[in-house]
Amino acid sequence: MAERNEASTMPVVNARIYPSGSLDVLSREEVARLKDASSGGLHDLLRRCALAVLTSGSASDDPRAAQELYPGFDIQVLQQDRGVRIELIDAPAMAFVDGEIIRGVAELLFAVVRDLAYRAIEFDDCAEEQQDSEGITNEIFGLLRNARLLQPADPNLVVCWGGHSINRDEYEYAKLVGYELGLRGMDICTGCGPGAMKAPMKGANVAHAKQRRTESRYIGITEPGIIAAESPNPIVNHLVIMPDIEKRLESFVRLGHGIIVFPGGVGTAEEILYLLGLLMREENADVPFPLILTGPTASAPYFEQIDQFLRLTLGDAATSRYEIVVADPAQVARRMAAGIKRVRSHRIEHKDSFYFNWSMTIPLEFQQPFVPTHEAMASLDLHRGRKPHELAADLRRAFSGIVAGNVKEDGMRRVEEFGPFQINGDPDFMLALDGLLQAFVAQRRMKISGQYRPCYEVVV
Amino acid sequence: MAERNEASTMPVVNARIYPSGSLDVLSREEVARLKDASSGGLHDLLRRCALAVLTSGSASDDPRAAQELYPGFDIQVLQQDRGVRIELIDAPAMAFVDGEIIRGVAELLFAVVRDLAYRAIEFDDCAEEQQDSEGITNEIFGLLRNARLLQPADPNLVVCWGGHSINRDEYEYAKLVGYELGLRGMDICTGCGPGAMKAPMKGANVAHAKQRRTESRYIGITEPGIIAAESPNPIVNHLVIMPDIEKRLESFVRLGHGIIVFPGGVGTAEEILYLLGLLMREENADVPFPLILTGPTASAPYFEQIDQFLRLTLGDAATSRYEIVVADPAQVARRMAAGIKRVRSHRIEHKDSFYFNWSMTIPLEFQQPFVPTHEAMASLDLHRGRKPHELAADLRRAFSGIVAGNVKEDGMRRVEEFGPFQINGDPDFMLALDGLLQAFVAQRRMKISGQYRPCYEVVV
Amino acid sequence: MAERNEASTMPVVNARIYPSGSLDVLSREEVARLKDASSGGLHDLLRRCALAVLTSGSASDDPRAAQELYPGFDIQVLQQDRGVRIELIDAPAMAFVDGEIIRGVAELLFAVVRDLAYRAIEFDDCAEEQQDSEGITNEIFGLLRNARLLQPADPNLVVCWGGHSINRDEYEYAKLVGYELGLRGMDICTGCGPGAMKAPMKGANVAHAKQRRTESRYIGITEPGIIAAESPNPIVNHLVIMPDIEKRLESFVRLGHGIIVFPGGVGTAEEILYLLGLLMREENADVPFPLILTGPTASAPYFEQIDQFLRLTLGDAATSRYEIVVADPAQVARRMAAGIKRVRSHRIEHKDSFYFNWSMTIPLEFQQPFVPTHEAMASLDLHRGRKPHELAADLRRAFSGIVAGNVKEDGMRRVEEFGPFQINGDPDFMLALDGLLQAFVAQRRMKISGQYRPCYEVVV
Amino acid sequence: MAERNEASTMPVVNARIYPSGSLDVLSREEVARLKDASSGGLHDLLRRCALAVLTSGSASDDPRAAQELYPGFDIQVLQQDRGVRIELIDAPAMAFVDGEIIRGVAELLFAVVRDLAYRAIEFDDCAEEQQDSEGITNEIFGLLRNARLLQPADPNLVVCWGGHSINRDEYEYAKLVGYELGLRGMDICTGCGPGAMKAPMKGANVAHAKQRRTESRYIGITEPGIIAAESPNPIVNHLVIMPDIEKRLESFVRLGHGIIVFPGGVGTAEEILYLLGLLMREENADVPFPLILTGPTASAPYFEQIDQFLRLTLGDAATSRYEIVVADPAQVARRMAAGIKRVRSHRIEHKDSFYFNWSMTIPLEFQQPFVPTHEAMASLDLHRGRKPHELAADLRRAFSGIVAGNVKEDGMRRVEEFGPFQINGDPDFMLALDGLLQAFVAQRRMKISGQYRPCYEVVV
Repeated sequence: MAERNEASTMPVVNARIYPSGSLDVLSREEVARLKDASSGGLHDLLRRCALAVLTSGSASDDPRAAQELYPGFDIQVLQQDRGVRIELIDAPAMAFVDGEIIRGVAELLFAVVRDLAYRAIEFDDCAEEQQDSEGITNEIFGLLRNARLLQPADPNLVVCWGGHSINRDEYEYAKLVGYELGLRGMDICTGCGPGAMKAPMKGANVAHAKQRRTESRYIGITEPGIIAAESPNPIVNHLVIMPDIEKRLESFVRLGHGIIVFPGGVGTAEEILYLLGLLMREENADVPFPLILTGPTASAPYFEQIDQFLRLTLGDAATSRYEIVVADPAQVARRMAAGIKRVRSHRIEHKDSFYFNWSMTIPLEFQQPFVPTHEAMASLDLHRGRKPHELAADLRRAFSGIVAGNVKEDGMRRVEEFGPFQINGDPDFMLALDGLLQAFVAQRRMKISGQYRPCYEVVV
Repeated sequence: MAERNEASTMPVVNARIYPSGSLDVLSREEVARLKDASSGGLHDLLRRCALAVLTSGSASDDPRAAQELYPGFDIQVLQQDRGVRIELIDAPAMAFVDGEIIRGVAELLFAVVRDLAYRAIEFDDCAEEQQDSEGITNEIFGLLRNARLLQPADPNLVVCWGGHSINRDEYEYAKLVGYELGLRGMDICTGCGPGAMKAPMKGANVAHAKQRRTESRYIGITEPGIIAAESPNPIVNHLVIMPDIEKRLESFVRLGHGIIVFPGGVGTAEEILYLLGLLMREENADVPFPLILTGPTASAPYFEQIDQFLRLTLGDAATSRYEIVVADPAQVARRMAAGIKRVRSHRIEHKDSFYFNWSMTIPLEFQQPFVPTHEAMASLDLHRGRKPHELAADLRRAFSGIVAGNVKEDGMRRVEEFGPFQINGDPDFMLALDGLLQAFVAQRRMKISGQYRPCYEVVV
Repeated sequence: MAERNEASTMPVVNARIYPSGSLDVLSREEVARLKDASSGGLHDLLRRCALAVLTSGSASDDPRAAQELYPGFDIQVLQQDRGVRIELIDAPAMAFVDGEIIRGVAELLFAVVRDLAYRAIEFDDCAEEQQDSEGITNEIFGLLRNARLLQPADPNLVVCWGGHSINRDEYEYAKLVGYELGLRGMDICTGCGPGAMKAPMKGANVAHAKQRRTESRYIGITEPGIIAAESPNPIVNHLVIMPDIEKRLESFVRLGHGIIVFPGGVGTAEEILYLLGLLMREENADVPFPLILTGPTASAPYFEQIDQFLRLTLGDAATSRYEIVVADPAQVARRMAAGIKRVRSHRIEHKDSFYFNWSMTIPLEFQQPFVPTHEAMASLDLHRGRKPHELAADLRRAFSGIVAGNVKEDGMRRVEEFGPFQINGDPDFMLALDGLLQAFVAQRRMKISGQYRPCYEVVV
Repeated sequence: MAERNEASTMPVVNARIYPSGSLDVLSREEVARLKDASSGGLHDLLRRCALAVLTSGSASDDPRAAQELYPGFDIQVLQQDRGVRIELIDAPAMAFVDGEIIRGVAELLFAVVRDLAYRAIEFDDCAEEQQDSEGITNEIFGLLRNARLLQPADPNLVVCWGGHSINRDEYEYAKLVGYELGLRGMDICTGCGPGAMKAPMKGANVAHAKQRRTESRYIGITEPGIIAAESPNPIVNHLVIMPDIEKRLESFVRLGHGIIVFPGGVGTAEEILYLLGLLMREENADVPFPLILTGPTASAPYFEQIDQFLRLTLGDAATSRYEIVVADPAQVARRMAAGIKRVRSHRIEHKDSFYFNWSMTIPLEFQQPFVPTHEAMASLDLHRGRKPHELAADLRRAFSGIVAGNVKEDGMRRVEEFGPFQINGDPDFMLALDGLLQAFVAQRRMKISGQYRPCYEVVV
């Protein structure tokens, strides 16, 4: 099955794997298309995502680290009439036990190939046409269904957002919240990396075991740009790789029945602004969607600062769509359970499905990929007088650009070449933004290790 | 859930049904397309197929009978964000118990809607392009996969062919064969109507119960033209509706691991000639495919006559691809088990899938729908000197046309209007053909009830 | 696994079988006790019961037939530390497929050994002490629990009584009733032989398949004296062998939630009188227990005669505890469903278990084995003026004796030696009894084949 | 379901619980006996065990702590015809979520009642007779079977012994060993408390999740004297309460397929001596039983000291039955897997069961309860010249007595009253023993918290 390869610094193995699940019944033509895609333009993407799941559980958030540790790693998807065969070359030995791949890791690997295959098979020639809002939502629906994430069950999926780099105190708190959610039968969905993306899953896992709940779902939603920095934690048992950050954000909102936000950095701020930008739209005024910001006592000032920033930029109206709970995990879980009950009633009343939030209006401006070039960052319109949801959209983009500059390969390269992004807007906004970002730096929320060098400059 | 409607001669009910299974996770757009299709051009097809499954178990082979009994029957597929809702109006009460639809009947009904939905969703605008051989096979693969019939399990699927109108003796024999197959863990696939399509399933069902086999598959493959005449028997637990007779025949060959032929009429003769036409091709010379003709002692002369007809028309070479077993059900099962073992080895050796027979070459002439107009029937080329597989193809078409003239609505209408089909060819072929057909008439294999009036004339 | 043995007239095999289920975890001591019992006093019992299940599905009701066909048959239960091994010598080949025992037959065989083992292990030295009413009920509870028949599920178990020798018309009717019960989710329990004990299981089996009900229970309750004459039909998937006829009757009443009586002979009459004898007791006046007598139109006179006999002997009060439905299977099922609903409410209200009818009082006189010697038969007190339930008890014994004289080895031997039993009582009772018995003879309800020679004389 | 009770210092609730599983089908008589037992002599035992599982996960090892925290706690087992109802009064709120008991805790509670019920029902009047060795083993078999722990599956059960009070380094190491065992499909059985009894379960749990193994067994075997001090950790999903320490030790040996010993204190030393006392007997010379002592690098001196003590007292022969592995979790798991493979072969060869180690001879002297009075402790014969297995038996008793003096209520009371136990024997043995015990004290292995005051004096 697998043989050890001694030529590399880290222990590596070669292995041949036969997928099961949705990959096991492909037509000859589909296998051929998948093979073409995986050896052609998508091969590098496949290689990076595969390496991320094979190093699942690793602590680093440096997207290049795994690649440097396993320089010889490669993956081939081969055709045989019977189906698909995956060849791994110089793969991390940590994914294997006595030469056999760990089953959970294999499942994540199949998920990577599956999502790649889906795109290769379904979207090869008509991708360009699908650029209207409905088309994008349909693509997301198709990807999530193909990943078997759309199941007609009672609403119970809590999305947890928060930093991949949080302190021990915050980590333990997020675990406790997950535990209380798990005791109450809720499943967890996160961005699938470490920190606040792992802690609630860990807590829920213990609680589910105590409640003898065996079919629990720990869903990780990632995207190619982030998976290398935030490799799936080992509890994730459903992984889906969305094409870009915007489709990933939409997936959280379509799939989840409520969202909890733990302390985090710029990525978390991006997520909060994305969601408030949606919830503050008139069309979504009546769509219930519980949103709870929570952390341990020591995090109270953090959320106060966020709260002030939101009031300042989006107005007090924004605050009606979220709730801040400090240092009370059981209360968070009870409030979330109550909120999801309202979601359930609303879906029944409006004959909406339980597994996909069709009711939420997500306009095209929230769906179109934002590529954080220096020009794009500089031209964000962060001024007073704009409609709150439009301003939220641009603020979201600003934070998105900083995430890219911090941990995504493309963004890091741009900043290395052209220097920090320039962000400008109304002075009081800029002051508040700068304060927030400096706090993130001071609290070590930007990067897990090393001295942080800002990838942005706020032009006041 | 359901209310009785007293206005009709037969007891009828109105009901509202919510599908589960593959229909329960559709996107808004898919639901809309399905709704359009089911209220537009495909509505009549849907209505007829739905009525056929709602009268599952009925004994008649008159395609118009059910429609006359339930003149007010209608079905609507309605959209709601949550998914699909099916409305039944004046539906046969026999499908319900105390106002609740029988679950197995509901599953067949969902299969009808599912296959319709698949075509409406997947093939709406590019159907015309897919007319090459590989494209047709891919369409069949897609339909069968969507029906969840492609499962990676050990080869064990025996296709049983034979007449829908057979005598008691033959029926009991076919049941015994099914019983012996079932004892040996084999599943059954048939054309899903009564007679030889029901008996082996019945026998296998008892044997599976005795062997405590709970996940058995009784697969019925039908097509819109035949489902009304041969309504699914109640044992069928997997139903798939192929678009036409040729795709149905191909499905048998791709899905099954071996075929047993019981006594039958023209439809059975069509099936034998289709299969021998394939097996006698050079490309398929090495593809193992067990084919056993069998019946009770009284049927020995029947098979002798078939055998002689095949030797005369296709040559002695044809006989190497089949085996005749008389009055020995256990032997039939043992031979089939041995044959399937060879199929298994061959698939492994050639890395072919267990669930779809990719190795068998099926050329376009066997895939293209044959429409039995009087012109088409008259121009069949039934002469000596043609390659056996080509002659087999035209003989298959001749029998196919007679089936249509006997029990399909379109064919019956044509014969009523223009008189019997004219079939011509070499005199000795024609004599043999005429002898065979007369024997079918004499043995009452053409129709279940009434005096048979031939829909053809053999021009000697 | 098994080798064919050619020395016998019927095809036989030798086989070695390893039980699973409740026999697979025995202590060394228990295995030793079982081995001792099975090679000692209980060996003949084991041999006869084992032969009965190995010929499951056989049509004969002659208890000696199987033994004559398989004279060399023997069974050994052998010890090994790992558990139990069963050796079969010259066993009927009909229970095997290509040398492997049919799994359902093996399960029945394990049930035979299990019930024997239970008695050998649990009751070896304290059997005599348990002769009070509660002790007997506890023994029955223990046997049924050990057979895994006591499951906490919603009440749905319908006991069907009726003749093993019934005509085609009645058989088809009983099948239809079983079908209608099965459509409504009810399970079936019978005496586990042919005729009215098989037909409702067969009908229910088809209905359960249609309703996609996979965990259905077809319970056969038998006893050593009757199993040879009424070998378990092949649908039975739970078999239990009670020690004697009285414990078998009590099991029906404790386990079932309602009873349907089809036409039958003396055995059926015995069962009706047993049950009415209980239901007419004051202690049971408030215990709901649906009892429906039913048959096709042609059976109407039969039930009329039974009805009159009951009115005459037990008084009109008896009729309030049963209902006669003629020729309406769906109505029978609906009435039974309604009756079981009342049983359910009563159990909840009285905190009684769903799986064992503790509320029913069964006095010792109904529990003590009745051995039908000529003396015992002659001294039955069938006179007016007795309390109805006491008279019912003696009438029950009278019919029980005739059953023994007809089909049980002991009884047949006694009658061969000492001539027919003498039954006497009040003249009008005797006339009615004689009329009833003669009708049974005329209707061929006494024996399946051959000319019936009465084993009794009614002394008028 | 449950109401909060405000009168107590710790939050408590009252609740009414209906058991499922093996308690759900009891006869009226069994329920009555259980009720009698639980309100009579066994009530205090029931109360203490129930409180232990309701505080599952608590960190204290003080047997009186829980009782002081929940002074008003009580439990009643009540009869109703339907079965058993459990009433909890002033129960720890930590076992409940929003008024509903946590399902895993409820299962542990049912296990407590089940084991009590088993003894009350099966052993009420014949307990005294069963004092021969075979009888004791049979009782153990019966208890384990009733707890559904005897399952015919491939050998994979690793017993882990070690201290309840170990340092962080040792805890993390034990977790890693559990993880490596779990990756290789092994299940874990321990004494069910904290420390080395929890860590390997925790590690295995993560590994099982990664390997998508859902039916894993985390078995805790305890006894009434120890359960209060070592309350079941929350991962335990199978709990069984053996009557005394000797039956608990025998259960480990009968049930487990190999044993791993982590660093521990006197309890662990007791276990090692018990096992070596068995393995060094001639009758067991050929019975394979992998025994691995392991710990992190820092524990190397600890195992060296144990090793020297064993060599000194039992001779070098003892060392052939165990293996010491330092700081290599994967190697421990690989060695254990190899050892269990030998166990498997041996069982097959000797036709022994996989689920109960009948081959191991356990003589009466190892089975009889040792009550550590001062007299009994003083009269232990710890001198040279005895047979190693006899000496092992007495050394085992010496350690057992110290455990009792440390953490069992009875023992603690005796020591409080009469002062430390006096242990005497050959001077070099005594010196070695004293050295070992002082090392345990120095390493804080005696008690989790507080200053340790020895409950013994070694008389040199």
